[in-house]
Amino acid sequence: MNPPTVEDVARAAGVSRQTVSNVLNAPQRVRPETRQRVEAAIEQLGYRPNRVAQSLRAATSRMIGYRIEPMHPHALGSMHDRLLHALAEAGRAADHHLLLFTADDPDDEVTNVDALHRAGAIDGVMIYGIQSDDPRPPALRQLRIPFAAFGRTGADAHAWVDIDNAAGTAAAVEHLVTRGHRRIAFLGYPEGVAVGDRRAEGWRTTLDKHGLLDGSRHLDLRGEDSLANGARLAEALLEHPTPPTAVVAATDTLAAGVLRTVRQRHARLAVVGFDDTPTAGALDLSSVRQPIEAVGHAMIRALLGPAVSVAQDEPAGQLLAPELIVRASSALH
Amino acid sequence: MNPPTVEDVARAAGVSRQTVSNVLNAPQRVRPETRQRVEAAIEQLGYRPNRVAQSLRAATSRMIGYRIEPMHPHALGSMHDRLLHALAEAGRAADHHLLLFTADDPDDEVTNVDALHRAGAIDGVMIYGIQSDDPRPPALRQLRIPFAAFGRTGADAHAWVDIDNAAGTAAAVEHLVTRGHRRIAFLGYPEGVAVGDRRAEGWRTTLDKHGLLDGSRHLDLRGEDSLANGARLAEALLEHPTPPTAVVAATDTLAAGVLRTVRQRHARLAVVGFDDTPTAGALDLSSVRQPIEAVGHAMIRALLGPAVSVAQDEPAGQLLAPELIVRASSALH
Repeated sequence: MNPPTVEDVARAAGVSRQTVSNVLNAPQRVRPETRQRVEAAIEQLGYRPNRVAQSLRAATSRMIGYRIEPMHPHALGSMHDRLLHALAEAGRAADHHLLLFTADDPDDEVTNVDALHRAGAIDGVMIYGIQSDDPRPPALRQLRIPFAAFGRTGADAHAWVDIDNAAGTAAAVEHLVTRGHRRIAFLGYPEGVAVGDRRAEGWRTTLDKHGLLDGSRHLDLRGEDSLANGARLAEALLEHPTPPTAVVAATDTLAAGVLRTVRQRHARLAVVGFDDTPTAGALDLSSVRQPIEAVGHAMIRALLGPAVSVAQDEPAGQLLAPELIVRASSALH
Repeated sequence: MNPPTVEDVARAAGVSRQTVSNVLNAPQRVRPETRQRVEAAIEQLGYRPNRVAQSLRAATSRMIGYRIEPMHPHALGSMHDRLLHALAEAGRAADHHLLLFTADDPDDEVTNVDALHRAGAIDGVMIYGIQSDDPRPPALRQLRIPFAAFGRTGADAHAWVDIDNAAGTAAAVEHLVTRGHRRIAFLGYPEGVAVGDRRAEGWRTTLDKHGLLDGSRHLDLRGEDSLANGARLAEALLEHPTPPTAVVAATDTLAAGVLRTVRQRHARLAVVGFDDTPTAGALDLSSVRQPIEAVGHAMIRALLGPAVSVAQDEPAGQLLAPELIVRASSALH
């Protein structure tokens, strides 16, 4: 049985299609007696006004775009999947659904968002993985497409939500210093990646605060975010004349690589990762946990809330605190 | 600047709104000269016909519903996230987007799918996590909502795609037998979960084929899919008077728990997991890999392909072969 249409309702109530439409959209135009007859027919048939037609009238799709990227084969990276779950749950509370789309690169992403927005398929979009000089924020502002960003570059004139990455690595260093470590290495992304730079900064400033930076400065290594690279960088650290006794890694993927080298060499090296992926639990890896459910809610509020207008020029950011989860990888050394 | 409307085009071309609509939907009704003028205005203004309006005419949203579940805190479970990525990529090739929705349970899922389908927001839905006596397939059939299932129960009168779970554990057992193991345990879901029963069946029949079932029958343990439970079941196995020398686990989560016990006790126990999660790579865990990209494409074809009609009564299933990835956890013993 197909769902009942407005024609079915009109036939059952003995009125025109237009009268049914008036009952739904301009009831004051319809005589009470007729209105009751139409409403009874709507009730009896279980008719629901077409949401697509409603969205045409309301100029809102109640849908939020989200670019889903292909799986990264080398990273544990469930971070963006966690964000997706969090946004879906937070969107539900705000009566919005997520529309997933794919794109080849940031420019293609903007093109696809523009097409979806013009077509009325989405009201706005969530973006993440913000880079320095990211082309998406200015392009979306110019297109007047509402958006909220997970991440920031520094002087963002739009709605953003971020976690305090520097505070996360700072907490990791404080924890290691408290446990007696004096030479603490950092493994991170290549410089220029905003998230990676902030994680490096938290490590650097906290070591400096404790007067330990000079003894650890040579232990700052960067490279691609893969398990193999984490293992390789850990070998380089252990072969140094003054090796570290602890490592703070910018991701759990790098940290898992470090743990592999530690296990193979039976080395004594405390390790803290970042993101608290499911793998961290499986490896007993201490890790900095992002409050991703709170990020999801904050992003939905930022996108849909009354405070945010696409015309405004003031930044509207929200910085959330991460939490260090301590496990055996840093608690046994 | 707002996107141009049909009114803007009409004004620029000096014609009525209806004429613009005719050019878009019934060009044969419009004189060539007028048509060219309207088409030039469309081109010049960058006007794109409203997709929502088009979908009203075409009675298709080009959108596929997918229920996203909350993150499981205890499982490594990136399997459904991998499916989501695969469906998004496969949907892109078929010019369809995914609409994510949430639900409290299978009945709530059907209710939400029904509402979205009636509202014209989705053309059909993908379901997964199929259980024995799953209420969703019969309910969706009755509502005449197109759907495809990842997973099956046995006599499914609808479109489904599944991996050959029994073949996966069979390959794991063959691998272990070849390496000299004679007592091979199985850790799995509680009985009655279709996927878990098939994984147990592959283990049982392959041991039986090699005449090893009698010596291993007591090593079949079931329980919840968590790391802690995997570790606990592994302890129970190792304390048995005739302990196994190898374990096939129904999930990487259980296998990771086994590895934790193995490491703590310095036990000699080969381990093979299932799903080839990112964690399997980090733990050097052998695991059965599901061809999830192929599953995504097969599900999109099953849902959108011409062969499948919601009215048909014949099952339309596709069974895909998994692949065993051998790593150190089973190759060094």
